[in-house]
Amino acid sequence: MNSPAAKTDPGNFFEDFRLGQEIRHATPRTVTVGDVAVYQGIFGPRFAVQSSDVFARRIGYRQAPLDDLLVFHVVFGKTVPDISLNAVANLGYADCRFLKPVYAGDTLSAVSEVIGLRENANRKTGIVYVRSRGFDQDGDCVLDYVRWVMVRKRDENAPAPPEKVPELPKVVAPAQLSAGCPLINVAAYDFALAGNPHRFGDYKVGEKIDHLVGITVEDAEHMIATRLYQNTARIHFDHFTESKGRFGKRLIYGGHAISLARALSFNGLGNAFHVTAINGGRHVAPLFAGCTVFAWTEVLATAELPGRSDVGALRLRTIATKDRPCADFPLKSGDDYDPAVILDLDYWVLMPK
Amino acid sequence: MNSPAAKTDPGNFFEDFRLGQEIRHATPRTVTVGDVAVYQGIFGPRFAVQSSDVFARRIGYRQAPLDDLLVFHVVFGKTVPDISLNAVANLGYADCRFLKPVYAGDTLSAVSEVIGLRENANRKTGIVYVRSRGFDQDGDCVLDYVRWVMVRKRDENAPAPPEKVPELPKVVAPAQLSAGCPLINVAAYDFALAGNPHRFGDYKVGEKIDHLVGITVEDAEHMIATRLYQNTARIHFDHFTESKGRFGKRLIYGGHAISLARALSFNGLGNAFHVTAINGGRHVAPLFAGCTVFAWTEVLATAELPGRSDVGALRLRTIATKDRPCADFPLKSGDDYDPAVILDLDYWVLMPK
Amino acid sequence: MNSPAAKTDPGNFFEDFRLGQEIRHATPRTVTVGDVAVYQGIFGPRFAVQSSDVFARRIGYRQAPLDDLLVFHVVFGKTVPDISLNAVANLGYADCRFLKPVYAGDTLSAVSEVIGLRENANRKTGIVYVRSRGFDQDGDCVLDYVRWVMVRKRDENAPAPPEKVPELPKVVAPAQLSAGCPLINVAAYDFALAGNPHRFGDYKVGEKIDHLVGITVEDAEHMIATRLYQNTARIHFDHFTESKGRFGKRLIYGGHAISLARALSFNGLGNAFHVTAINGGRHVAPLFAGCTVFAWTEVLATAELPGRSDVGALRLRTIATKDRPCADFPLKSGDDYDPAVILDLDYWVLMPK
Repeated sequence: MNSPAAKTDPGNFFEDFRLGQEIRHATPRTVTVGDVAVYQGIFGPRFAVQSSDVFARRIGYRQAPLDDLLVFHVVFGKTVPDISLNAVANLGYADCRFLKPVYAGDTLSAVSEVIGLRENANRKTGIVYVRSRGFDQDGDCVLDYVRWVMVRKRDENAPAPPEKVPELPKVVAPAQLSAGCPLINVAAYDFALAGNPHRFGDYKVGEKIDHLVGITVEDAEHMIATRLYQNTARIHFDHFTESKGRFGKRLIYGGHAISLARALSFNGLGNAFHVTAINGGRHVAPLFAGCTVFAWTEVLATAELPGRSDVGALRLRTIATKDRPCADFPLKSGDDYDPAVILDLDYWVLMPK
Repeated sequence: MNSPAAKTDPGNFFEDFRLGQEIRHATPRTVTVGDVAVYQGIFGPRFAVQSSDVFARRIGYRQAPLDDLLVFHVVFGKTVPDISLNAVANLGYADCRFLKPVYAGDTLSAVSEVIGLRENANRKTGIVYVRSRGFDQDGDCVLDYVRWVMVRKRDENAPAPPEKVPELPKVVAPAQLSAGCPLINVAAYDFALAGNPHRFGDYKVGEKIDHLVGITVEDAEHMIATRLYQNTARIHFDHFTESKGRFGKRLIYGGHAISLARALSFNGLGNAFHVTAINGGRHVAPLFAGCTVFAWTEVLATAELPGRSDVGALRLRTIATKDRPCADFPLKSGDDYDPAVILDLDYWVLMPK
Repeated sequence: MNSPAAKTDPGNFFEDFRLGQEIRHATPRTVTVGDVAVYQGIFGPRFAVQSSDVFARRIGYRQAPLDDLLVFHVVFGKTVPDISLNAVANLGYADCRFLKPVYAGDTLSAVSEVIGLRENANRKTGIVYVRSRGFDQDGDCVLDYVRWVMVRKRDENAPAPPEKVPELPKVVAPAQLSAGCPLINVAAYDFALAGNPHRFGDYKVGEKIDHLVGITVEDAEHMIATRLYQNTARIHFDHFTESKGRFGKRLIYGGHAISLARALSFNGLGNAFHVTAINGGRHVAPLFAGCTVFAWTEVLATAELPGRSDVGALRLRTIATKDRPCADFPLKSGDDYDPAVILDLDYWVLMPK
């Protein structure tokens, strides 16, 4: 008789990863208008392109595409059982590019490649760098990103692998920002209907925008969202165990704060209709149910897209806080982050010109 | 550099409205079976026409239409950022008519016209009357209603506009109740499958019906529903701010109580398959998470629809309470409402003859 | 004027049931990808067949079928207003067979036959046995099961009906397990994509599997799920009344624990893609919001399906607990169940060979 443990998957530990290893992740997932509605109910985004088939078609999409972050979370969720089930911390993202619109009815799957490994000095953990890619039913890559996580070792005495830390771009280059966005018919883009008159050219580097309102998170909400993505990290779901754990309660999936901040950013960035790349992101502090999330954004850069006169790119830094309105743009407190900051996200959005 | 405030929308204040002003609201919204499912999960309606494509087709619909109140909430939600973001109170509804069935896949947008303005004596607030209309992708009006709200002034010294209080019908006339309902094949209407044997002719003026059961509201639920409608009134979502505010907690969107009462009313009004008009409604007291909502209904009037022998209209008054069963039909306590009453709704439903 | 009570349905009491009585239940229900998404958000299942249209089509389904338990809950929900609104306890299930895949877009309705009646000695209650069947829009039976419930009498002096206790199979026979599953193309079944390498032949009788992780239940979640099924048992929804009742709080629908256990069982049973029959089940103890559900499974038997070389059947016993991890397979404490056990479910699943 097999050992029962052989049937269940305890996740990979640091010493299970090999440089160059390719991991095909379970579970393939057909995304639907049902997923869109649940996501809408949890986060409340109001971007016209993702909200209306009619609006989307008029400017050049086949129909309303899925929210980019919903695509991100579904692909990310697939990687969790193989990559981060035994993670201590999700350390960072880089070189994240949205390469093709995803529509309701598409089927997503994910593959990761181990591109870096570095054992920590304490020999108890190590850092795993993976490039993860999401594919649709046509085999086209819809999302490509790198993340690195600190993963526990099963056995502290397991030998360290050869150290390899990948070189990663600090910023996705403007030439790479076009792929996921069809040519936009700006003349057909109805700014009144989109809810905001401001175009690409109206934003200036250094400009800061307080997104004004806050939104409180409930346990039911973040668990529903995170299960929607088939993300299996138990720290988000198991109050019994976590009540005795590090935080004394369930930790909210970091991506939840990203989606909340993105939804809040509509107020001030209503025509930033497409998140086209994420340059980097840091979950500065944990988020728990009962907290109210606020956000503000600084324009870090603007960029023309080679060969395109329809849209331009804004590089944004969005800061999310908990229980702290952002009228005064909280960020640092001395050398450290302001204690209210939970998210520091650096990303590119596209806007009509 | 622009002032950051220029990018965000603080909502309109009383002095921003002009009589006759037309406001095209963001965000257009394609409603889907996903929205129907989320609404089903939050409220639990059981009317056969909205629940089954097969049932709906057999009696004359193209397929199962959306719940009328889901349509109302989506259209209402669009008006919030422009009309009531700075509202002190939502004072009333009138002349609300559902004019065309809405199906999954339709795309809704909304336009409001300012039809009345009256500054209050304290000069701090004023009442804004708007006629709001929801349109589908064909440009057909699916919903038309008036509401009036008390809105704060930005500047107490701003001059008062010419006062205009519109004349509004107390009751939508029976001749106006047909538009949103196709001709019904009553012979194909399966009363057993619909769950209730009672037809139009079985209800008498003055009859009172206790809907028997109660349903408790959770914060996650009302926030999910209200975000589904893209309603942005921060009082529903921001515990941090509201914990220091008027009620010490988040206030539930008034429409939530309407949908709960409608779902509860199935027990006793199971064949009232279409809300065709709302004559008026008053949110008598605020509703908060943790409360249990009960409801009862009185038949105020019955009406024939000109030229139609398939369906008749019942004018109903539905009272919803919190933490108070309705076996004894609670309504008044002296001149005031019974303190448990939260909603007093006057509306027309259609029933097969 | 009719008595108002005549319009509402207080549910059937024990003396209202007659042997052989057939009850057509309200409300017909078109199930959609929206329902699938809400179910996904509440329970988080990861079985590839139900998750991906592409995966499902490659192995022989028309598209991704609905989760079997979602079908069960929708059909079960329809029976509640007629069968168990006045139930004291849901005593058991037997002979439950899933007979045809259900797809998004199908419309389900339900019919029950009273197949047994037995008054209890105290004359206050009696046991009602019903065979309930779910049908799709083609009139095909998709689900057939027996349950028995203890139902209150309206009047203790009402005469007892002739006693009839039906003979029920302890186990659904292997020859009956094929109907609901198309012929599977095992060569096209991608075990890596499904997330687990283990096939039918890898499981041995007596093998026990701890599903490792736990999942905490919130009130909003179980109410959303149970309303999605149009299940009207008020004990799940009405905190006001239940706070003074038997448990002092809302009781979670028993089927919620079944769906949680099934979702958790993916870890160890990832290729058990179809629940084809339920032999019996007992809700050993009540489940309440705030509890964390864990589960483990024992393989009770394996069976070949007559005439089929594509799939085999595992008879499983899944035990769910609350606030009690299952590494040591908790079950009994002396003659009684371990106090942490909430569910003891005996069922058949199909797995590729």
